[in-house]
Amino acid sequence: MEDSKLKKVVVALGHNALGYTTTEQWNAVRITAKSLADLVESGYQLTITHSNGPQVSMIHKAMTELHRIYIDYSPAPMCVCSAMSQGYAGFDIQNALKAELLLRGISTPVSTILTQVSVDPYDEAFYAPTKKIGRYMSKEDADNEVKKGNYVVEEPGRGWLRVVATPKPLEILEMDSIRLLADHGQIVICCGGGGIPVIVQDNALQGASAVIEKDDIAGKLASDLGAEELLILTSVPNVCLNFGTENQKPLERINVEEAKRHIAEGQFGETNMLPKINAAITFLEKVPQGRVIITTADKVTEAVKGKAGTVITA
Amino acid sequence: MEDSKLKKVVVALGHNALGYTTTEQWNAVRITAKSLADLVESGYQLTITHSNGPQVSMIHKAMTELHRIYIDYSPAPMCVCSAMSQGYAGFDIQNALKAELLLRGISTPVSTILTQVSVDPYDEAFYAPTKKIGRYMSKEDADNEVKKGNYVVEEPGRGWLRVVATPKPLEILEMDSIRLLADHGQIVICCGGGGIPVIVQDNALQGASAVIEKDDIAGKLASDLGAEELLILTSVPNVCLNFGTENQKPLERINVEEAKRHIAEGQFGETNMLPKINAAITFLEKVPQGRVIITTADKVTEAVKGKAGTVITA
Repeated sequence: MEDSKLKKVVVALGHNALGYTTTEQWNAVRITAKSLADLVESGYQLTITHSNGPQVSMIHKAMTELHRIYIDYSPAPMCVCSAMSQGYAGFDIQNALKAELLLRGISTPVSTILTQVSVDPYDEAFYAPTKKIGRYMSKEDADNEVKKGNYVVEEPGRGWLRVVATPKPLEILEMDSIRLLADHGQIVICCGGGGIPVIVQDNALQGASAVIEKDDIAGKLASDLGAEELLILTSVPNVCLNFGTENQKPLERINVEEAKRHIAEGQFGETNMLPKINAAITFLEKVPQGRVIITTADKVTEAVKGKAGTVITA
Repeated sequence: MEDSKLKKVVVALGHNALGYTTTEQWNAVRITAKSLADLVESGYQLTITHSNGPQVSMIHKAMTELHRIYIDYSPAPMCVCSAMSQGYAGFDIQNALKAELLLRGISTPVSTILTQVSVDPYDEAFYAPTKKIGRYMSKEDADNEVKKGNYVVEEPGRGWLRVVATPKPLEILEMDSIRLLADHGQIVICCGGGGIPVIVQDNALQGASAVIEKDDIAGKLASDLGAEELLILTSVPNVCLNFGTENQKPLERINVEEAKRHIAEGQFGETNMLPKINAAITFLEKVPQGRVIITTADKVTEAVKGKAGTVITA
């Protein structure tokens, strides 16, 4: 019973849709839920993914302190912290969105699918981890991490931080479940924090000390689903040229070729806008009839009507 | 495309299927996964639920310590800890089961659905909370909990513990998603720890300071799904009369009437076997053609063939 009248979209939520603490997240998701419900009212089937940087950092800190205080508790590996963060953020999003839909008399089911994503153990990202996680450590604790085979970086004056790799996603392991729900018009929250990275080894699925970029997985998820649109919600209303300068120029419509030219010009910040543009390109090269919109949550309903945001097409 | 050849069963996993720490859980689920994969090979569609007492306690402790050390982090309410525990246990179960199935060349999708369950704010359980959670507290901390509206009990010589209510489940909010996956022959892990209890209030879904008993939700889940069987996996191979005495007698087959008589005789422990028998009765009164089996994980494949465990029918 596929509901073909609905327009299938993938929505990628950034940090500001979730906040940094339990209280902030709870307040933030209630605002985000209104924008998401507006999309549902406009006839969209939503598959939602979200970042989890602050969430997984918080949990990683909490589990590290627990192990420090109660030695009987074994440490929690990154994959476990990531799974907990999917539970934490997924619950808040599905709870707030369900409540907002109930308020509007909409009974569409909403649920979160815990998601594992396979990565290549030989991905070059594993040889040069760059993603900072967790709390500042003393030199001694940092040395212990290195002995365990983990990577650390020093931030002068503040201490050492653990860094993990950000490999590319290969396969979304729970894709059949996500697709079934999406094909039936249900709202699915999945691939939280990029998904829990696992390495397929001798028929085992080993959790990897890594983080998959949320934008990377959003592009792949939209391609795998054959979504009509990929909506990347972030902290700025438009992609800009010369961002942060006097000549800053918001973009309204660009195509993949223009996007690639702007990348070559070094227009986009490596850790913020570049991964979003790359996700757009990934999706549009697989689904050329698709459309990508980059904007803020509060402008998204205008944006899908072509009245706000940056639209990227093939 | 419903897969009607498969026999729909709900499997309820007890504490010993999961263990108490991250390492124990990881080892325990790999053993449990073998029994579950045996059932899949025998033609069963599995909807799996599990307890989360040790998991949610561990997370509650960790989040409490985090807030104590880094005051910027707001405390995590019980519903958030419960959501994290569903992420944590669900990931380990779906990971281990998927790996075990891959090893056997079985490609059935496996996923975890985060689950909220509504409870009645006037449930009498809220007036006399009995479920102990978290860490031992000082008198001062206990007094603070009471000021916040929480309940505590003293365990002489050890300190104070917070206690929460165990209300009855009303509605599984993500039931449409669970049913869709189960109807299509997929393996679903859901209602972890009894589900995240929420109270429906003015179109909001408020997380409740409560825990739903895992056995209560297992009975309801099996009824709602119209499952053919409910398999309750625990630490003993059979339900026994005169348990723990010289006259201990394992039961092989009983019906609901006999079960009720044994309850009236006070045969079953209030916190361990009684909730399981009640879950069996709940299910069989709704689905009279159904069958309930109570046994250990390692005996379950024999048990479904009638060669082990206690079978309960209407």
